[in-house]
Amino acid sequence: MTEVLPSYVQGSWWTPDSSAGALIVRDASTGAEITRVNSEGIDLAGALEYARTVGQASLGALTFHQRAVLLKQFALALTERKHELYALSARTGATKADSWVDIDGGIGVLFAYSGKGRRELPNSQMYVDGPIEPLSKDGTFLGRHVFTRLPGVAVQINAFNFPVWGSLEKFAPAFLAGMPTLVKPATPTGYLAEAFVRILVESGLLPEGSLQLVSGSVPTLFDELRLGDIVGFTGSASTANGLRSQTPTGVRFTAETDSINASVLGPDAIDGTPELDAYVRQLVTELTTKAGQKCTAIRRAIVPAASADAVIDAVRARLEAKVVIGDPRAEGVTMGPLVSLAQRDEVLRQVQVLQDAGGRIVVGSTDAPDVLLADGSTAAATDGAFVAPVLLRFDDADADAVHEVEAFGPVASLLAYSTSSEAATLVARGGGSLVTSVATHDPVFAAELMTGIAASNGRVLFLDRDDARSSTGHGSPMPGLVHGGPGRAGGGEELGGIRAVLHHMQRTAVQGSPDMLTALTGVWHAGAAARSDGVHPFRKSLAELHIGDRIASASREVSLDDIETFAHFTGDTFYAHMDEEAAAANPFFPGRVAHGYLLVSWAAGLFVDPEPGPVLANYGLENLRFITPVSPGDSIRVELTAKQITPRETDEYGEVRWDAVIRNQNYDTVATYDVLTLVEKERSAA
Amino acid sequence: MTEVLPSYVQGSWWTPDSSAGALIVRDASTGAEITRVNSEGIDLAGALEYARTVGQASLGALTFHQRAVLLKQFALALTERKHELYALSARTGATKADSWVDIDGGIGVLFAYSGKGRRELPNSQMYVDGPIEPLSKDGTFLGRHVFTRLPGVAVQINAFNFPVWGSLEKFAPAFLAGMPTLVKPATPTGYLAEAFVRILVESGLLPEGSLQLVSGSVPTLFDELRLGDIVGFTGSASTANGLRSQTPTGVRFTAETDSINASVLGPDAIDGTPELDAYVRQLVTELTTKAGQKCTAIRRAIVPAASADAVIDAVRARLEAKVVIGDPRAEGVTMGPLVSLAQRDEVLRQVQVLQDAGGRIVVGSTDAPDVLLADGSTAAATDGAFVAPVLLRFDDADADAVHEVEAFGPVASLLAYSTSSEAATLVARGGGSLVTSVATHDPVFAAELMTGIAASNGRVLFLDRDDARSSTGHGSPMPGLVHGGPGRAGGGEELGGIRAVLHHMQRTAVQGSPDMLTALTGVWHAGAAARSDGVHPFRKSLAELHIGDRIASASREVSLDDIETFAHFTGDTFYAHMDEEAAAANPFFPGRVAHGYLLVSWAAGLFVDPEPGPVLANYGLENLRFITPVSPGDSIRVELTAKQITPRETDEYGEVRWDAVIRNQNYDTVATYDVLTLVEKERSAA
Repeated sequence: MTEVLPSYVQGSWWTPDSSAGALIVRDASTGAEITRVNSEGIDLAGALEYARTVGQASLGALTFHQRAVLLKQFALALTERKHELYALSARTGATKADSWVDIDGGIGVLFAYSGKGRRELPNSQMYVDGPIEPLSKDGTFLGRHVFTRLPGVAVQINAFNFPVWGSLEKFAPAFLAGMPTLVKPATPTGYLAEAFVRILVESGLLPEGSLQLVSGSVPTLFDELRLGDIVGFTGSASTANGLRSQTPTGVRFTAETDSINASVLGPDAIDGTPELDAYVRQLVTELTTKAGQKCTAIRRAIVPAASADAVIDAVRARLEAKVVIGDPRAEGVTMGPLVSLAQRDEVLRQVQVLQDAGGRIVVGSTDAPDVLLADGSTAAATDGAFVAPVLLRFDDADADAVHEVEAFGPVASLLAYSTSSEAATLVARGGGSLVTSVATHDPVFAAELMTGIAASNGRVLFLDRDDARSSTGHGSPMPGLVHGGPGRAGGGEELGGIRAVLHHMQRTAVQGSPDMLTALTGVWHAGAAARSDGVHPFRKSLAELHIGDRIASASREVSLDDIETFAHFTGDTFYAHMDEEAAAANPFFPGRVAHGYLLVSWAAGLFVDPEPGPVLANYGLENLRFITPVSPGDSIRVELTAKQITPRETDEYGEVRWDAVIRNQNYDTVATYDVLTLVEKERSAA
Repeated sequence: MTEVLPSYVQGSWWTPDSSAGALIVRDASTGAEITRVNSEGIDLAGALEYARTVGQASLGALTFHQRAVLLKQFALALTERKHELYALSARTGATKADSWVDIDGGIGVLFAYSGKGRRELPNSQMYVDGPIEPLSKDGTFLGRHVFTRLPGVAVQINAFNFPVWGSLEKFAPAFLAGMPTLVKPATPTGYLAEAFVRILVESGLLPEGSLQLVSGSVPTLFDELRLGDIVGFTGSASTANGLRSQTPTGVRFTAETDSINASVLGPDAIDGTPELDAYVRQLVTELTTKAGQKCTAIRRAIVPAASADAVIDAVRARLEAKVVIGDPRAEGVTMGPLVSLAQRDEVLRQVQVLQDAGGRIVVGSTDAPDVLLADGSTAAATDGAFVAPVLLRFDDADADAVHEVEAFGPVASLLAYSTSSEAATLVARGGGSLVTSVATHDPVFAAELMTGIAASNGRVLFLDRDDARSSTGHGSPMPGLVHGGPGRAGGGEELGGIRAVLHHMQRTAVQGSPDMLTALTGVWHAGAAARSDGVHPFRKSLAELHIGDRIASASREVSLDDIETFAHFTGDTFYAHMDEEAAAANPFFPGRVAHGYLLVSWAAGLFVDPEPGPVLANYGLENLRFITPVSPGDSIRVELTAKQITPRETDEYGEVRWDAVIRNQNYDTVATYDVLTLVEKERSAA
């Protein structure tokens, strides 16, 4: 490793001229020097402008699906060299399991967004959001919402605890949206971020300017930001508040901050139940994983007064039985050190604050623990940042400190409650959390508690005998779910799912005629021009088909005999189809009417082109509404219009969505729906 | 009217002990005193706490639909006494047309949200958002997002220009969400806000604590706010920035601020086209409506250099032909005064700034205009705040001032451009706008411009010959569309549509077993317990039906003969059903398969209960996906499970959504979909 950790800006690696003034970064377990970090002299303004020009241009040349395919390739490139990342990760104090969360978890986010991007976004550059809003009675003026990418750069300011995952969970949605990213990792583990960026750079897959890295501090950053840029911060609540106030107008600033998360044990979950057992296992996991250095870790264990002792005993027993503290490179170690001696000292200081506020240590201690060293020996004191797991008990559950003070390490406090509303009040005292978990098998208690705590949590996990084995865990954000929370948790809900992609885009209401909205969005809007050129649209491949291509069918009369035939063939002898008097008594029918399923089945018969051709299958149907009933003697016909075309990047076919309207002889709308088909990109030779 | 304008707090009307220090509010046209405003001594903390306790409790007792029904009743109560509001509105300087926008527009928002609330929200208190996120392979652990209301108070800080509409567009979504509102109107027109609040209070319809009003200043407001409260500000960008920085952590602050909006004329829209005509008409409307005191008004007319003179001439001609300035109470007046002499002086000051920066007045003047008085006489100078419409021309389209300085009155500036990218750059120079309109009939120009301007606008309106008559206008936010914009426009997108309701709620990811998610959300989740109690669920009214009630059908074998019968009956002779060899050559089919429509038709035959009963109609079907093809000889059966029950407040029936799963003899899933039915609340006597 070079003496000073490089940055990757404006398409090349950059290192300061001298290492004077650089911070020394050390191995968490041994204190050995790993690297030095200094960004003095870096052209930050140039890097940002490079992203806004070169990065925007290269990403702007790609569709959502093309970006999604690249995300998968990034994931594969990282997978191939992940052993390099694991080796470095151990130096941060991470055990293999911890590293798996960071490294494989981060790669997993890339895979997840690659899949979501292709399933949930169109293969184009504009995302159409929500239903059409009719704005005029005659249908000539409509409203619609679209998302287009922000024109700036997505800046990440990350925490030290998950240098890979924490960065990739922000990079993936930004990249998918088409926004270039500038990563600013935390100094203590920045060398791991540098390593994953290096792998991606060396893969040759990165569009130019789509990813830059600044190793070191960025004191002038906020002066350089402007409308269209975005900042995603992960770290402490106090830093978040400071940065938020420096953010220029028009720059989106969101924060995901460590919070005083809670885990509640239900009153039904008494000693001996699977729920108490699952609760304790989860609590110990959250105490020891990453040595408790997780913004989602449990800080407050809120339990029925009657179960407090049972929980404490079970936690102590499990810690003794399962947890081996030491250098992650030693065989058998299940819990590593904190990231640095400075962090260790800070955690011990906060434990003292909790003790001063009434917390009694009931499990563990703040003495330096015996640890297993890499060479297999055990030592009572080392140069590593080791802290033993500590559980405190507060007799006064109302003490401010337990709801406000965070010891960012293997530390939690236990509080007792008596009623569900008291439990909910205690949870909410945290002032907004990333996550609360609840171990209960009682849906009534669950619902009561949920009502009281939902608004103060970004995520709530319910643990019981049914999901204890399959639960992904209190502390694990999932790529599809919100990661963030109100108040102290930062106020963000921008991470997780396609909403994270849209967070990098501007939602704009568009008003105009159906033709104009069709031209702008690439999605056909009812009322826009349609084309029947004599070629059945089912005979056109994706290369030949155009939005607005239409087949207008012949009409077909429905007789009472047809209704009877269909009823007896299908078995659907519902009275509205079979009994004139009973049907007429129904508020919605004039008398016997045709089955809705008859109408859509006939419509398919009217629009289908039977011979083999580019249309491979009708794989579904959406938003079917029956509007006007069809009586015997009425005729129906159908118009089918190509509405949206989504070629797949990695298949020889794609999706076509068709707008279907069935009308009767009076031009009344009988039914509307979308028909979903798979269509070949090119006509096959046959 | 009382001497000092009352506030409505903690369930009663409040006036300060003395009018000392009160601000005098005057008639915009005549300068006559209307009222005085002073809030000194008001118990603001008490009002906020009243909302958080009493208001939250009374709204918490209602479902979304019950609140929606009340919104309609509020609208009717205001309609009945709207003449009182119109009379007061004229005193603010509003013409009848201006008042219509404010008063009927405000009432319209209540109607719109009442309808949207019942159509787009469930009849319960929790909003379930987005799809299920599977989190385990065995289906025992799922994720879902829910919205629950924030536990605090929604504070509105409003601008003077739309005292009714501006308040109701925020009140309606807050009320629907279940959040109590505290209104802080702008002092110059606060008497009109007081009047509409009084009508609502006197209607006796308001749930206790759901609406409070503070007439006067609120200097300590931001000190009293806390997590769970929300502030919606409308006004100037500079005030917004000041307030944003005072907002405590965890309080959502959003702003909708006046911005330097643009209106672009396309290069195709030359003199003589309907687009140029529509452009000029709209520009004149935006100059004169509300005397230009609208945050959405056009401030920058961006036109092709070749069309600049034609536009200027047409604007001048139309102003001369159509616009009569005067006291709104005088017959024939089409444009009133500004709200106050102070506003008039401020506008004239800003016009001078624009002139100093290179703007030449090409239409109108800053001299006091001749105005029509209420008595029918004309005067050159009055005590009213009259300003004539002014159009400036900037030869240097790049001058900073024209993109930054706002004269909040009947003032716009004209800029010329030569290419579409130049036009887009000029639009974006506004630093973020509420709205840009574009008059063009050229979809290529429209799409090019849209790419360049979408991210800097909250709304973009395309005007052409097709929608010129039906367009709702550049300056009119619509209840269903985003009202807000990036950057200088305040950064908000919280107004408009159901997203405005959700803005008053917290999105929380919930993780748990299918049973737990079903219990918490009231929506059945696949994998949760289902019940077949021997009574066909179609025989149950809404009062008798439970989530999870299920009919599991018998199985039925599909023969080749059935497929042929169906093909010939429906006309759907697609080769995949009819031709073994061709079907087998298709990548998705093993050979001839049954029609998807046959399967869903048969499924209906298998689950339907034919005799008259509480189920009135199947009105639609959603999310149908065909998963496993069915070959001749296969059998199918269907499970139909009650998934969501939505009784209507104002009908004797409601919606039931059923989860339908068709499986084959191997328990493979053949198709999944939701069946939508209307079901009676109670079983009818028959």
